[in-house]
Amino acid sequence: MRNAMRTMAAVASAALLVPASAPAATPDTRAAIEKAGADFAATFTKGDAAGVAAMYAADAQLFPPESDIVTGGAAIQKVWQGVIDSGVKGMKLTTLDVVESGDLAAESGKAELHGADGQVLEGGKYLVVWKRVDGRWKILRDIWNSNAPAPVAK
Amino acid sequence: MRNAMRTMAAVASAALLVPASAPAATPDTRAAIEKAGADFAATFTKGDAAGVAAMYAADAQLFPPESDIVTGGAAIQKVWQGVIDSGVKGMKLTTLDVVESGDLAAESGKAELHGADGQVLEGGKYLVVWKRVDGRWKILRDIWNSNAPAPVAK
Repeated sequence: MRNAMRTMAAVASAALLVPASAPAATPDTRAAIEKAGADFAATFTKGDAAGVAAMYAADAQLFPPESDIVTGGAAIQKVWQGVIDSGVKGMKLTTLDVVESGDLAAESGKAELHGADGQVLEGGKYLVVWKRVDGRWKILRDIWNSNAPAPVAK
Repeated sequence: MRNAMRTMAAVASAALLVPASAPAATPDTRAAIEKAGADFAATFTKGDAAGVAAMYAADAQLFPPESDIVTGGAAIQKVWQGVIDSGVKGMKLTTLDVVESGDLAAESGKAELHGADGQVLEGGKYLVVWKRVDGRWKILRDIWNSNAPAPVAK
């Protein structure tokens, strides 16, 4: 039963998917966050882990699957460098929804990781909390998980 | 390479864990969210999936691992009922950090799922975006993933 969290998969896959968006972000915030996501993916695809890490706030936390929480720019850069080194050569992020209040925003979206030939290695979804710092949106919290079922545990 | 997202695990596990908390929530908001989390765990532990689902906002989205996004109360209830039916008999949630702006807050924390004998089935971490609705904090976005490595894929 150590895969209890994964058990949710079969149940959840049968459930409905309906758009939702309240309190919706302003068009300017939505556009800024979509742009930041596109920049993130482009920077990753260049193999620039330091550039990716620079998009996080100073007090950011990353929540990678099968890992403890990762805090701070140097540690976050190390995670992304490891992903790049593992053979992930590209990324596509698609914003689905943004909610906003003051200097906080929360974005949900879909992610694809691409291999050297552009093939999709894995698909997932993410939730990112953004913080506006000196007028720019920076990533404060970043968590994702896979859409695909895990290998069956014996 | 279909386990590319899981590759991040080994890298991230080596990274630092440092507390972070800005823009920190007010003590009242932090207390309200910690209380709501304790209520969530207690309601789940009673096996009350409808009660758990009632803690979500009307436009809530759930992001279970290995699943598409799940939207709305009925679908969310179905997911939690499935988790209960799978043999998860208890849950412990520990708030690590809450940030807040207006009627939005983002909580990060650690989760444990317990079996019938109280044993820990799985440990993970979560990010929940809360929305204040008529003075009460409701769950707007809820995503988590496991801390444990997945079975090695062949």
